[in-house]
Amino acid sequence: MLLDHAHCEKRAASNAINLIFRYPDKASLAIPLSRLAREELAHFEEVVEILARRGTPYRRIQPTPYAARLTSAIRGEEPARLIDTLLCCSLIEARSCERMRLLADVLDDPELVRLYRGLLAAEARHHEIFVDLARELGLVSEDELRARLDELAQHEAHVIATTEPEARLHG
Amino acid sequence: MLLDHAHCEKRAASNAINLIFRYPDKASLAIPLSRLAREELAHFEEVVEILARRGTPYRRIQPTPYAARLTSAIRGEEPARLIDTLLCCSLIEARSCERMRLLADVLDDPELVRLYRGLLAAEARHHEIFVDLARELGLVSEDELRARLDELAQHEAHVIATTEPEARLHG
Repeated sequence: MLLDHAHCEKRAASNAINLIFRYPDKASLAIPLSRLAREELAHFEEVVEILARRGTPYRRIQPTPYAARLTSAIRGEEPARLIDTLLCCSLIEARSCERMRLLADVLDDPELVRLYRGLLAAEARHHEIFVDLARELGLVSEDELRARLDELAQHEAHVIATTEPEARLHG
Repeated sequence: MLLDHAHCEKRAASNAINLIFRYPDKASLAIPLSRLAREELAHFEEVVEILARRGTPYRRIQPTPYAARLTSAIRGEEPARLIDTLLCCSLIEARSCERMRLLADVLDDPELVRLYRGLLAAEARHHEIFVDLARELGLVSEDELRARLDELAQHEAHVIATTEPEARLHG
């Protein structure tokens, strides 16, 4: 679970940087996404250090199908592609936040409870940041944005309901 | 020049994260490269903020051929590929450091002199970090490492000597 978490943080950082690369002309994205990537990398390091102390070195694992299935709903043409990408990022962060809250409540490992409580606030903020970034682009109306977020959330619910259960952060 | 610099910082961060992805089983790389990526992203933000204050929003530009030509010398088979990649990263950081020192000395723009002096120390450290990471992997002897670094430095000198001059950080 921790190893999966480390990979999630790393992928989140990488996704944020890829968005800066893919949309260099969206100046409003560059700094917020770079800050977010730095925060995800700091979390990555925190989790990798806990893993190392527990004798589990960081190593390769297969990602769960969650993110790939969720993002398969991203439309191909711009600006829909950018809006959908930001909204999917928001949903992933929201789900991380929810799962971390659950873990913080049920685990009786003080170090992990502290870890997850510490990360919760950041994940909740990230969830908001992605919706704000999508809104500030001014490419779609507030109603369209909300409607699309609802659609993607329904798609996400379907993905989660039909994915084989496994002990992962988004499993 | 500043815009090129912003892109260089972003590429450096992205390259570091890509190395974490490509070598998940090299546990000694994960935390140093993640820290380095965070530092590069902080520099990226610093440069983008200066650009924005000067009325030049961050936008797409063509990269110079420097990095692509330098890294064309990376051997294809492992572990040579990893060693060469780390040594090329080290050379790029060394070149950044040299160019920033030059800029800090010749520019009479106090904000940019402060920027480059501030970044110099970090770039010099990054240059060392990449060689240290290559050494700590224990895949080649110290003599082999030094010999390969010399070869790549000669290749880099040739790349710089035969690249069309342009006002860029590695031009």
